[in-house]
Amino acid sequence: MTKTNPIERLECAVSYAADHPFPLENLPWTVFSTQENPAPRCAVRIADQLLDLALLSCKHPVHFKDSPISAEKAKSLFSEPRLNAYLSQPRHVHRAFRAFLQNLLGPSSPLVTGSKHTLDAVLVPVEQAKLHLPIRAGDYTDFCASEYHCTATGRLMFQDPTRPLEDQWYQLPIAYHGRSSSLVVSGTNFHRPQGIFRTRPGQPAVEFGPTRRMDFELEVAYILGGAGSDSSEDLNPLGTPVQLEKAEDLVFGLMLMNDWSARDIQSYEMNPLGPFAGKNFATTLSPYLVELDALQPFRIASPEVKHTPFPYLDQRGTGTTWDVRLQAHLAPQLRTDTEKVWTKISDSSLKHVYWTAAQMVAHHSVTGCNLRAADTLATGTVSGPFEQPKSEASLIEACKAGSQPIQLDVTKGAEAQTRCFLEDGDEVKITGFAYHPESKLHIGLGECSGQVLPALVFDN
Amino acid sequence: MTKTNPIERLECAVSYAADHPFPLENLPWTVFSTQENPAPRCAVRIADQLLDLALLSCKHPVHFKDSPISAEKAKSLFSEPRLNAYLSQPRHVHRAFRAFLQNLLGPSSPLVTGSKHTLDAVLVPVEQAKLHLPIRAGDYTDFCASEYHCTATGRLMFQDPTRPLEDQWYQLPIAYHGRSSSLVVSGTNFHRPQGIFRTRPGQPAVEFGPTRRMDFELEVAYILGGAGSDSSEDLNPLGTPVQLEKAEDLVFGLMLMNDWSARDIQSYEMNPLGPFAGKNFATTLSPYLVELDALQPFRIASPEVKHTPFPYLDQRGTGTTWDVRLQAHLAPQLRTDTEKVWTKISDSSLKHVYWTAAQMVAHHSVTGCNLRAADTLATGTVSGPFEQPKSEASLIEACKAGSQPIQLDVTKGAEAQTRCFLEDGDEVKITGFAYHPESKLHIGLGECSGQVLPALVFDN
Repeated sequence: MTKTNPIERLECAVSYAADHPFPLENLPWTVFSTQENPAPRCAVRIADQLLDLALLSCKHPVHFKDSPISAEKAKSLFSEPRLNAYLSQPRHVHRAFRAFLQNLLGPSSPLVTGSKHTLDAVLVPVEQAKLHLPIRAGDYTDFCASEYHCTATGRLMFQDPTRPLEDQWYQLPIAYHGRSSSLVVSGTNFHRPQGIFRTRPGQPAVEFGPTRRMDFELEVAYILGGAGSDSSEDLNPLGTPVQLEKAEDLVFGLMLMNDWSARDIQSYEMNPLGPFAGKNFATTLSPYLVELDALQPFRIASPEVKHTPFPYLDQRGTGTTWDVRLQAHLAPQLRTDTEKVWTKISDSSLKHVYWTAAQMVAHHSVTGCNLRAADTLATGTVSGPFEQPKSEASLIEACKAGSQPIQLDVTKGAEAQTRCFLEDGDEVKITGFAYHPESKLHIGLGECSGQVLPALVFDN
Repeated sequence: MTKTNPIERLECAVSYAADHPFPLENLPWTVFSTQENPAPRCAVRIADQLLDLALLSCKHPVHFKDSPISAEKAKSLFSEPRLNAYLSQPRHVHRAFRAFLQNLLGPSSPLVTGSKHTLDAVLVPVEQAKLHLPIRAGDYTDFCASEYHCTATGRLMFQDPTRPLEDQWYQLPIAYHGRSSSLVVSGTNFHRPQGIFRTRPGQPAVEFGPTRRMDFELEVAYILGGAGSDSSEDLNPLGTPVQLEKAEDLVFGLMLMNDWSARDIQSYEMNPLGPFAGKNFATTLSPYLVELDALQPFRIASPEVKHTPFPYLDQRGTGTTWDVRLQAHLAPQLRTDTEKVWTKISDSSLKHVYWTAAQMVAHHSVTGCNLRAADTLATGTVSGPFEQPKSEASLIEACKAGSQPIQLDVTKGAEAQTRCFLEDGDEVKITGFAYHPESKLHIGLGECSGQVLPALVFDN
């Protein structure tokens, strides 16, 4: 997680600790509302506050005189209950507006200088805000791009501890179209889903009921945006693949994601058409959209290529990813008034993912599929190398498909607890960050959490 | 295709032949624009004309005095470039508004009586209109609900002519999430997609290039709509499955669909996550959305159940579908100035599809997935019984995976032509209708066509 090249830090009109996860270098996007103003609107986060961009553009248009987006346009873009309209702006506008905001919040901020001190008026403490899902994904696609995850689950499924991945896996980043309606924001709890599954894996008997193999998947979602010269929802015309060297430019930023999975339902249904009801009941995203530009100091080479792909996916050794540490913690529901105890289940990094964001975009569009602003391309479970402890980014890997229960941390004197799959009341929290020790630059991705509630009882 | 129960026909202020495919009993929805007014807006089709609902509500609000939708609201709903806002209205409003329109266009139409003759002013000849995709699907799901199609393709894939379907197929309607961005309207041509595939099926060698197994799939798309008591995009809350007996009420109507498929690309990529780039480059829909109510006289029992499903899918013998005849024709590109010749490839019916629309809705939501107005649930390829000639609704079935070329019809004296898969320039046209001979009631679904253009040449 360390970087040796020096990083010069930005000064900010808002004060915060040097290692705050939301410094001026981060400035992630979100959508929020408050009790006083329940209309969801766009903001960026700075330290422990949100800069209300709708309010700023409506009430203080004078500060947009050097902005690449006029106050009038900003008002219309940022009063929307999602970031889609902003994501449809050209990439050069995103870059220029990011620089504009960093200057606006800089040490000589026009918001604090002169006769008026407007900064306080346009900042909202984050604890007073309700955060919403900041995008509406036209389409959500889930890749399966970690070699370690795919190898591990294939071995578990075929009960063959040495089984290699299919050759096809190294030819292209495999993926399926997911369900966009059930993308929900962190903090949305859901009832244990019910469906059809085999009573015992591999045996013919089937039953209908609440899933017995409720799992999470720690993932990163790349959010697309940034049209060419004109603002447009469409990023490439239908029929025109995105060339690999231009592909990363269509990725605006990333979010944390939990692709909740009912393993037994999924396993029963997925041959030959892929996952469906076992995954479409809820997929949780963090409320913050961190721009790729914020992660620039953490850019590193992507994993070594094990098979040279066809030219449309061949990065010729120049593939890059980001050194973002990703963790998942689990906490059972409190049965007494003891303190909630989180057990670290996963400790991995985006850097372990074999296929890059650019390759995902290039492959997604190779047959001509048109991509749109706010499309969500997830990495799939980001499991790391087998030799690295806790690098499994889902329970099915961590507990070896139920054969090796995980010991949970408990408060001193409390009864021991183990987990294979999630029980009712269990909460899962995914976090992510990049950190540079010398400069203390800390880019936080926020958190992505949710709790499994008991199954609902229905009549039929 | 015949019905014995008598059907009383409606009289209409517009005159047309008794067996016209767009009589007052049909009244399908669409979105159109004209040269004079290029803004796409909502309409219903009556005979050879479109009733411009945006114009009617803007210019002639007086005629909405008996409407379940006020002129003001109609203006906002129908000036939209898609039907989504109308689809989000409650079901009882849809029913009442359909009756209102049938009265408005009835024999004593207020549009032709009294001092003003406004009917002509709000009708647009369909040949002067450009038809658009009338919906924006938040999510598109493709089922695979024909027993004949799934049996045939399974047998071809495993080269076993007696292979039965998996037990799982009879337990639940299998499905995958499709790509909504590349849903296009009839008449949209596309370039032959390029991707990775095996040079010979079953052999290890792979290559990148234009697909050699371009196919079509004749399908029907059910379009959801009709919220409960209040208008809402959301048809069921996240976490609350739709009960089977209420499921069909969430289906507003249907459209014809061609799920273009690059068989070789699909076959290479689809294990284990299902179809992706082999299908996401274009999926064509007809421009007309025919309400289920229009097909009421053609409602029939769904195919006999071969395995009693779990209660959430068990129709207890009351499952129904619609006797809608579905055909696909193919025409090669003209090389001389001879007349275009269409060869009938498929002649099937919606009645052959094993799983019903209600079962699809119930299964889609069983684990809690929320459905939204304009969601598109397609049947999958609607192939009919093996013993029925031309009942195969895709080329891969009709030509037995390339082993039995199909003879095309040609003009007298012209060179013989055969097809296994689609060649550049080939056009496929899907049509559908229901017909009652005694009354001559003819409910046309319009057509769904597209042409395969040569692959584009890219640099990499």
